[in-house]
Amino acid sequence: MGSSSAAPWKQLLLGSIQANSHLKHYSYFQLATVSSSSKPSNRTVVFRGFQDDGDKILINTDTRTRKIDDLKHCPFAEICWYFTDSWEQFRISGHVDVIDGTNPDPVKLQQREKSWFACSLKSRMQYTMPTPRISIHKLPSQTSSLDPSVGPIDAFCLLVLDPDQVDYLNLKSNERLVFTSGLSVSGERLWTSEQVNP
Amino acid sequence: MGSSSAAPWKQLLLGSIQANSHLKHYSYFQLATVSSSSKPSNRTVVFRGFQDDGDKILINTDTRTRKIDDLKHCPFAEICWYFTDSWEQFRISGHVDVIDGTNPDPVKLQQREKSWFACSLKSRMQYTMPTPRISIHKLPSQTSSLDPSVGPIDAFCLLVLDPDQVDYLNLKSNERLVFTSGLSVSGERLWTSEQVNP
Repeated sequence: MGSSSAAPWKQLLLGSIQANSHLKHYSYFQLATVSSSSKPSNRTVVFRGFQDDGDKILINTDTRTRKIDDLKHCPFAEICWYFTDSWEQFRISGHVDVIDGTNPDPVKLQQREKSWFACSLKSRMQYTMPTPRISIHKLPSQTSSLDPSVGPIDAFCLLVLDPDQVDYLNLKSNERLVFTSGLSVSGERLWTSEQVNP
Repeated sequence: MGSSSAAPWKQLLLGSIQANSHLKHYSYFQLATVSSSSKPSNRTVVFRGFQDDGDKILINTDTRTRKIDDLKHCPFAEICWYFTDSWEQFRISGHVDVIDGTNPDPVKLQQREKSWFACSLKSRMQYTMPTPRISIHKLPSQTSSLDPSVGPIDAFCLLVLDPDQVDYLNLKSNERLVFTSGLSVSGERLWTSEQVNP
């Protein structure tokens, strides 16, 4: 068992991203949450990078999707990120901060704005579309336009996942490593890692 | 909205499997469960086909993995199956039947045996390995052998997921269909489908 205050899994993950970046779907992973009826939910979302230079994972979503209700009920999620070319899996679990336009923290609102402008105009247009999962027959025909200089619209929501455990599996080498976050005696976050049976 | 007693999503899924079958990972999907601490879990598993000629989805697993504890706590799961070549996602949720060697139902034990013999010998060997997620340093060095004619060993477990909702998303055509299972007035299972906003 090894220990370190920096997140030792991050370098491993950056290596996998690099090794698979020639594939369009390399940045897609599955995000599991627990619904208000206490059942599991699972959907594909897009990796939007790490927050600043830290370990927290950014995901953009629509405030009108069910995952927001899920996360208000249970603020934890597990990412399952399988890299199809290198045969590596990262299971990343942690607390999720849901940052919509009503967030009272100005620093978080700035982060949300930064994520908005980091999106392509085409991606931003998605948030002007009618409510997801509403019957097509009930939709008014509508055309939307969006001023590129305008900040995030109400439907745009930033999710920030703060990992507390990362389970890494390499199907080529048949190796598995579990990284767990704890607190040092001085109250700092400390990561420990252990090689386990696959 | 349309309705039918046969599962209308199955033909769609078989088409996606066919269209992506040239990829090694086409049969991999992510299975979300809820842990005994009520948090979400998510991992990649392998599609092992449909049960008989029906709609139930087969997955093989090891009785010693945490997903078994999860499913004993909450017997529901959601599959997220993303097809990387055709850009299609199936979210399949339903009840999961956990069939290990202690199952009292002889028909289910037969299904488990059938799934065991459908595995390659190499796949079967995985179940003779030491307990998953146990520290490598605590493992005894061991060599295993397995008689190809011998039936399922204790660690082998069959999961049978009985879908009650399927959410289909096509990222190329930007179409989304939600299939929901209900009961007809005569008590038969009835699937309804609805085209919804992506």
